[in-house]
Amino acid sequence: MSAGEFSLIETFFSRIGESSAIELGIGDDAATVRVPDGHTLQISTDTAIEGVHFPPDFAPADIAYRSVMAAASDLAAMGASPIGMLLAITLPTADAAWLSCFADGLRAASDATRLPLIGGDTTRGGLSLTLTVLGATPESSGLRRDGARAGDRLCVSGSLGDAAAGLAVIQGKLHPTEKAAAQFLQARFARPTARLALGESLRGVATAAIDVSDGLLADTAHIAHASAVAIEIDSGKVPLSWALKGMPDTVQARQWALTGGDDYELLVTLPPEAPVPETLTEIGRVVAGRGVRCDQAPTGGGYDHFA
Amino acid sequence: MSAGEFSLIETFFSRIGESSAIELGIGDDAATVRVPDGHTLQISTDTAIEGVHFPPDFAPADIAYRSVMAAASDLAAMGASPIGMLLAITLPTADAAWLSCFADGLRAASDATRLPLIGGDTTRGGLSLTLTVLGATPESSGLRRDGARAGDRLCVSGSLGDAAAGLAVIQGKLHPTEKAAAQFLQARFARPTARLALGESLRGVATAAIDVSDGLLADTAHIAHASAVAIEIDSGKVPLSWALKGMPDTVQARQWALTGGDDYELLVTLPPEAPVPETLTEIGRVVAGRGVRCDQAPTGGGYDHFA
Repeated sequence: MSAGEFSLIETFFSRIGESSAIELGIGDDAATVRVPDGHTLQISTDTAIEGVHFPPDFAPADIAYRSVMAAASDLAAMGASPIGMLLAITLPTADAAWLSCFADGLRAASDATRLPLIGGDTTRGGLSLTLTVLGATPESSGLRRDGARAGDRLCVSGSLGDAAAGLAVIQGKLHPTEKAAAQFLQARFARPTARLALGESLRGVATAAIDVSDGLLADTAHIAHASAVAIEIDSGKVPLSWALKGMPDTVQARQWALTGGDDYELLVTLPPEAPVPETLTEIGRVVAGRGVRCDQAPTGGGYDHFA
Repeated sequence: MSAGEFSLIETFFSRIGESSAIELGIGDDAATVRVPDGHTLQISTDTAIEGVHFPPDFAPADIAYRSVMAAASDLAAMGASPIGMLLAITLPTADAAWLSCFADGLRAASDATRLPLIGGDTTRGGLSLTLTVLGATPESSGLRRDGARAGDRLCVSGSLGDAAAGLAVIQGKLHPTEKAAAQFLQARFARPTARLALGESLRGVATAAIDVSDGLLADTAHIAHASAVAIEIDSGKVPLSWALKGMPDTVQARQWALTGGDDYELLVTLPPEAPVPETLTEIGRVVAGRGVRCDQAPTGGGYDHFA
């Protein structure tokens, strides 16, 4: 990148979000961040590459929005309250129109997640974003993957399979007859929502948590493995959106719900005595043993941790 | 990446460094980190791309080592004590021999910087690394770029220009007659040292600090700009290594020292009353005004912030 390109990028990225926790943001060798007393830092990093994590010619605002939400979703899965984010972006060129749209998506996601942009790096190459997100939890209250115990119930937020169906719409592989369904599914892929408030509300309640990024079966297997338990899923209880329920190919819809990734819903285990919050659907249970059992076997696609 | 490739990578990256500050490392949705009471977090992210930041066919151990040091150098420039690092790596393939060598370099750099690997992400694509490094400083004691005042002295650690000369050796553009000189210069590019201990020792002493990554003149300009001062450099005082002093082309050597980047030495301003530590060389002074003045004008290369 030339000096001119750098200053162009600097202009677009200079004021995205703010927070009193940020003592020093963009512009020095590092950002300086206050973690509240009695809290621990939660930090995660996530790369999104054109052609792998989003299709070529994906709208720049959606690239930014989706990438921030995917990264922020890891904070939600820890029950963390947002602090800020750093963006390392690799760009083939510094195009003002593209950067302007990208910055709009970045700002929208920053506002929605309360994650101000506090630092980053810009390099030249194939389009790729690495987002590092920071959050905080009161000491020893972070939601982990390894706390599920036999007797716990398995619950998930929202609906599953929409993002996989939405990607199929974007790629021209799925053609919903209803325009509203097509739009809904595409938005679920392009504009997912990190369940940050839900994650925060589950601190001290959920015994284990993960976000559904690899697909329900795979992510359930991650909890089962980390917690050294078995988890049973009732496939009929897995929540489907109205748009996915309306699909003529119900087998495909059900399969996306089980194995499609990128929904960024929260998958948690709750102890027997805890009431199930309204925003969650109970879909299974934790039992003694190892692995994941589901009454409907998946036929492939993104799922390779099946026990 | 397939499940098999991921587990291969996981094997190599699973135990690189450790620290009591890390409550939860690799393997959950986020890493959980304790920042000591009364301290603020310092965080920086840095991308290194094959063919841009290091030559194609660069040794994998050197890629890892150099990238960690480049990132850690930003912590040194803040005067931060190291906490940990996250590695987002994009790889064309998961090759065991390559990964093994890369992990060796990563471990060596982790040990040298006391930055345990606490998290990351692995994706497939052209070779690229984004390292996020975390450190801490006692509250309000981080070294910033904006504190230089007229009357301060400009000082730099080590010697400058070696990395640029080393890259020229690696690229076959420079052929030192002495083998030891060739080896020394190459190592200065491939195995730089982040000046972490020096940075920590300058907390509460230096008025401003930056690491020399863009080149002496460019990085001096960053301090001058942030501090709203002018800085004068005596080019004859800029420290050269024995290897660079031995170059027949003294004009080129001097130019590398002024404009070559990647040395990762610390450039600081010290108030008039502070003694200059043995590890630093005084090379100029801060005066009223704006920009950077040097008695020797650069003829190009990496320097585009000249006032």
